[in-house]
Amino acid sequence: MVKYLNQEEAINIDLELFNQYKFSVDQLMELAGLSCATAITKCFPVNNISNKKTLICCGPGNNGGDGLVCARHLKLFEYNPIVYYPKQTNKELYHNLVHQCTSMDIPILKSLPCLGSFENDFGLIVDALFGFSFKPPVREEFQSVIDLMKTTSLPIASIDIPSGWNVEKGEPDEGGIKPELLISLTAPKQCASFFSGTFHYLGGRFVPPKLEEKYNLNLPKYPGTECCVSLKD
Amino acid sequence: MVKYLNQEEAINIDLELFNQYKFSVDQLMELAGLSCATAITKCFPVNNISNKKTLICCGPGNNGGDGLVCARHLKLFEYNPIVYYPKQTNKELYHNLVHQCTSMDIPILKSLPCLGSFENDFGLIVDALFGFSFKPPVREEFQSVIDLMKTTSLPIASIDIPSGWNVEKGEPDEGGIKPELLISLTAPKQCASFFSGTFHYLGGRFVPPKLEEKYNLNLPKYPGTECCVSLKD
Repeated sequence: MVKYLNQEEAINIDLELFNQYKFSVDQLMELAGLSCATAITKCFPVNNISNKKTLICCGPGNNGGDGLVCARHLKLFEYNPIVYYPKQTNKELYHNLVHQCTSMDIPILKSLPCLGSFENDFGLIVDALFGFSFKPPVREEFQSVIDLMKTTSLPIASIDIPSGWNVEKGEPDEGGIKPELLISLTAPKQCASFFSGTFHYLGGRFVPPKLEEKYNLNLPKYPGTECCVSLKD
Repeated sequence: MVKYLNQEEAINIDLELFNQYKFSVDQLMELAGLSCATAITKCFPVNNISNKKTLICCGPGNNGGDGLVCARHLKLFEYNPIVYYPKQTNKELYHNLVHQCTSMDIPILKSLPCLGSFENDFGLIVDALFGFSFKPPVREEFQSVIDLMKTTSLPIASIDIPSGWNVEKGEPDEGGIKPELLISLTAPKQCASFFSGTFHYLGGRFVPPKLEEKYNLNLPKYPGTECCVSLKD
């Protein structure tokens, strides 16, 4: 059975990928975001969403970067993505990821879309707010989008962690968001064992075999050249 | 019909991707190399190659970088890749790409494998020597690997351009390599109209629609979330 990582293991594996294996953030974020867009396409086919928009909610760290890459690939997969990115990261990579989106006509919003018509206009929410390094509490500037995701009837696809959940202990006591799809990246985190949504995928097919062995990840076999694999089969 | 680019157009599109659209080389090389590994898997399934090795011949520029990324993904797809990289590029990205390969137990050779057992040990050659910016003649240090590829009975998969071919006019007068698979990246170059091998794929699914329009690329529709598409269907 695939290993569910605690927070420290997740952080250490990430550090090893960059420091020992010399991957760049650009490389791994591109593969991670692509795998998220691919898993989303499997679970929420573009034809089912028809002409509705997809809201990608991006946080200030790497999870938000994965969301920006995911948005760009969703556009190429003929979705209609709109990015909500309230607190933009002041690093060159992030400026470029935003630029890549806007130059592909993906709007970047600083405030949430008008709630009145929200559930008519949108068909899906991608939660790319917080990843495996999240520590509660949710900062005030993200509370409104967390509240939106807690109350919406739209399906949510969470990247790596359902945002606001404890990375190890899962949904917070006061209740948290309930994604229909969770895309674990590299390896699932312990909170994924409390996930009860319909779809659970693993993405980020870049883990060197030696790193997998070192942490006893016991990753499932990705089918063929697929960049994601269902953990529910 | 998809447009076949001349050399100047290919160079300009590349420059626009980096300068106007602000992609990093890391990002696009990762997607390009992944699409090459995927096309190779479609044309030369790993089970057909069984336990034979795949020789990836990498040149000194970005085409060689695509080859290094392709080698890494082929390893994850359970091939047995070995890289021949006689003239390594002295840039951080290239040092890292090499390190990523070696840390995944992909040997990097500075000289060609012994010819005696070559065709027994290997099942496929990936030609990642020269790309769309190539100008003849082939430099002396690459003549032996070009000669090997011209005389071998093994199938060859060429990345973007069959190495040694004129980017626009195709196979040189003295005869050139004859790949069985050509993977055009971004858009095919004019030499691809002279390609008579079995498989022709397009990879590098990252072209922004506005750039496609500006150059009238008329790219084929990629199926679903696939990162490559056959140009022979």
